[in-house]
Amino acid sequence: MTNATVARWDIFEHTMQGPAEGNPYLDVTVGAVFRHGNRTLTVPGFYDGNGVYKVRFSPDTEGEWHFSTTSDVAALDGASGTFVCGPARPGVRGPVRVHNQFHFAYEDGTVYLPFGTTCYAWTHQPLDLQEQTLETLKTAPFNKVRMGVFPKDYIYNTNDPLHDVFEKKADGTHDMDRPGFEAFRHFENQVGTLAEMGIEADIIIFHPYDRWGYCTMTEEQDNRYLRYLVARLAAYRNVWWSLANEYDFLLDTKPMERWDTFFRIIEENDPSQHLKSIHNGDPAKSYNHRRPWVDHCCIQNWEVKKTAEWREEYGKPVINDEPEYEGNVPKHWGNCEPHELVNRYWITMVRGGYIGHGETFMRDDDVLWWAKGGTLEGQSVARIAFIREIMEDSIIDGLTPVSTTTSRVSRRVAMSTDGDTRFIYWSEHQPLQWDVGLPEDDGDYEIDLIDVWNMTVTPLPKGPNPRVHSQRISGGGTVSNVSGAAFGVELPGKPYLALRVRPRRTGKETGHGNG
Amino acid sequence: MTNATVARWDIFEHTMQGPAEGNPYLDVTVGAVFRHGNRTLTVPGFYDGNGVYKVRFSPDTEGEWHFSTTSDVAALDGASGTFVCGPARPGVRGPVRVHNQFHFAYEDGTVYLPFGTTCYAWTHQPLDLQEQTLETLKTAPFNKVRMGVFPKDYIYNTNDPLHDVFEKKADGTHDMDRPGFEAFRHFENQVGTLAEMGIEADIIIFHPYDRWGYCTMTEEQDNRYLRYLVARLAAYRNVWWSLANEYDFLLDTKPMERWDTFFRIIEENDPSQHLKSIHNGDPAKSYNHRRPWVDHCCIQNWEVKKTAEWREEYGKPVINDEPEYEGNVPKHWGNCEPHELVNRYWITMVRGGYIGHGETFMRDDDVLWWAKGGTLEGQSVARIAFIREIMEDSIIDGLTPVSTTTSRVSRRVAMSTDGDTRFIYWSEHQPLQWDVGLPEDDGDYEIDLIDVWNMTVTPLPKGPNPRVHSQRISGGGTVSNVSGAAFGVELPGKPYLALRVRPRRTGKETGHGNG
Repeated sequence: MTNATVARWDIFEHTMQGPAEGNPYLDVTVGAVFRHGNRTLTVPGFYDGNGVYKVRFSPDTEGEWHFSTTSDVAALDGASGTFVCGPARPGVRGPVRVHNQFHFAYEDGTVYLPFGTTCYAWTHQPLDLQEQTLETLKTAPFNKVRMGVFPKDYIYNTNDPLHDVFEKKADGTHDMDRPGFEAFRHFENQVGTLAEMGIEADIIIFHPYDRWGYCTMTEEQDNRYLRYLVARLAAYRNVWWSLANEYDFLLDTKPMERWDTFFRIIEENDPSQHLKSIHNGDPAKSYNHRRPWVDHCCIQNWEVKKTAEWREEYGKPVINDEPEYEGNVPKHWGNCEPHELVNRYWITMVRGGYIGHGETFMRDDDVLWWAKGGTLEGQSVARIAFIREIMEDSIIDGLTPVSTTTSRVSRRVAMSTDGDTRFIYWSEHQPLQWDVGLPEDDGDYEIDLIDVWNMTVTPLPKGPNPRVHSQRISGGGTVSNVSGAAFGVELPGKPYLALRVRPRRTGKETGHGNG
Repeated sequence: MTNATVARWDIFEHTMQGPAEGNPYLDVTVGAVFRHGNRTLTVPGFYDGNGVYKVRFSPDTEGEWHFSTTSDVAALDGASGTFVCGPARPGVRGPVRVHNQFHFAYEDGTVYLPFGTTCYAWTHQPLDLQEQTLETLKTAPFNKVRMGVFPKDYIYNTNDPLHDVFEKKADGTHDMDRPGFEAFRHFENQVGTLAEMGIEADIIIFHPYDRWGYCTMTEEQDNRYLRYLVARLAAYRNVWWSLANEYDFLLDTKPMERWDTFFRIIEENDPSQHLKSIHNGDPAKSYNHRRPWVDHCCIQNWEVKKTAEWREEYGKPVINDEPEYEGNVPKHWGNCEPHELVNRYWITMVRGGYIGHGETFMRDDDVLWWAKGGTLEGQSVARIAFIREIMEDSIIDGLTPVSTTTSRVSRRVAMSTDGDTRFIYWSEHQPLQWDVGLPEDDGDYEIDLIDVWNMTVTPLPKGPNPRVHSQRISGGGTVSNVSGAAFGVELPGKPYLALRVRPRRTGKETGHGNG
């Protein structure tokens, strides 16, 4: 093989010609072992039709790599070669990993704050619409897209997909043993396009909105599809594995044990160990995110004041990927008004979690962003750009909620800290004065009042502490309900305000390199 | 005795002179047996100072009543007399009872929809302020006031009470064995004033905001105080017994068993069997409202979408007496903005519960409505008057929530029915079309769109059903997600709207006689 050069976290691909007869998808096993010094990685390969076999690999370490292929077919076995992994291209930071237990960072250590959106079936739409979607994403504040491998059969989603994910047979049914290579190629190309835009692809592997038969594949077919998907896609640095959308609506055909197995199949096959999660339908039927193979909690739940509780319960990062969508469709999940959605963003993030977007405005052409992409028309998007800007300018290690389950204050008012930076978000509360959660020392602090809807940041001076009053406690003693804060703030007495307090910054500051 | 006439549910009072020496509060037992036909009721009496003893009784049945007194003091024992109970005065309907399991009605059967407010210590303020409070209540939309027997020591509540509830000793402490008769007389007079205004007095018997020692009375003193209070007040038709405000903050001095005993003491002593409830501080520490001596659930919790769950959990009427207060104080419980509070009213009521009001706006004179009364300045009051008007015009038997725990729709959108009247409240949701929960027949319905903040009621025509789509279910079958409704409605796509649908009314209609 040639001594190719591949930038770190880009894709090295080795292509081979092999048997085209029979059904190589079922019959042929192919893969490679990649070596860097004494380190080896086992990388599954895949059949791409017309006798073409490929092994894809994304090197995470600079230097010389060697590989040799393995297969039960002689023509594909024992090929070998070397390549050099060079420095990452500018803006390429590697896969996103869990960071500081409840947060995320790219593999190069840069903090990653997920601001996702949902376009379930955008890659299955006509190409001009896909172009429009990508155009919209260029200026949108999103750095993650939830998107399904399979097309979607659902209200406002009745058009045929661009490509069949599995081959259509003469009788109109699909042959779940014969992948639509063109469909997979197109899907992964779009994943790659997103990667170049700095957008993570949160890939939904199964979902229940189906008229093609994808919901009722056999266990063997499911597992094979999963291994195939991982072999094709794991080399894309921006891949996240979302085992399902609303997995609990699929339990009739895929019982719980199979989901556990799916997670382990990914673990065994993915050399890059991308993030793995699973999305619930009924908020009461979350998968047990404490299981070791779940990397972060994907939540569907509008009760966002529980964010800190979810963190405590699962001990992992929380992304509320479906806190309801902004829109006006006659479906209960798709008609939240934008002020409340923006409120949920701040409640969630200032409780140490992350939250995602979707848009479901009725349209005559049925092109709703949440499923098909296209254009954005909601009012929350600008405010999501605003909170992203604020948070990327503020967060270093990630926000940790204050007194999550014990304090009666923190159940109503969101408060969190990241080192010596702190946030308070009052949501529907409108105090004229406040000091709970403010610094206990009288240092030189930059105090910013943030109007989350009007997108203003107003510096505030230190103010007096609010009045306190002694209260009786156990056995007749008293305690003064002082906050411990060295100062307070005076506020305008209106709702939907946040406060950021941090040591005054001098000289040049560096933000994140996100997006 | 004279053959007095007492109107039904008014107060018959028999006064006697007896011993004044020693401490009759501790030493003398007095009471009476009241007879109507073969029915007898045991009525405790009380000492009112200066050798005066009284037995008060509120007859619930018209006709001739006989009584004879009982006492361990000869001078108070064996007195007897008769009186005639005549028809109730206009507007007098008797005590409020639980009605249809989850609702309330006066004893005469008139439905009572509680619209309470909170003025914890209004009867302990200067008399001119008390007059102002009563003046405010005359035009306010409230028909229940939460008010404490004891004064309040708390932030914004540091002034001395008008009267000492127990006698002050020379050293400044209070003698919990010697009631302040003037204090009790004043308190019950104000309860009586409220009765004449058609307002229920939700009497808070214990609370933790104390500098006088009421929190640390002995068990014997607590029980005696409770029996005394019941003897004095049970004859007032508008009394509700609220065992405590935030009872869980008193558990250090009054362990749980004592609360159970308190309930039973009231049951044993109250001939009129007024409603009994108990208010929690921490939402996670509710008293077990399933206990048989609890008549209705008094809830402090801002998570009002749980209202239907609380109904199911406890099987009793739910009154969320503290869903946060409208105001701007720097305390987490007292600075909710009014739109959200109004939203909570509609969410609660259209889930089959009831909800209460309080106001905590900062004032230089510390006269905050929630504790002291005075005047109202919030924006929610007018909207509470509006929902009260709507509900009193609509409810006959009480609202029953639709599919409380099973339906994914009803967890987000409030829906309930009362016979053939139905309500839907979308809160933060803004669908352009809707039909879930609308009638299954195409009858002649009056459809009213209610803007809960702007207080408008707009008739709507029937509209088309929203589009539906078949969805895959168990094992590959499909189901069409039709609502079953015969028609839909077209909506303006804005939040905070409710819908009332009922058979078109013709001719003259009767509302409630409330308030």
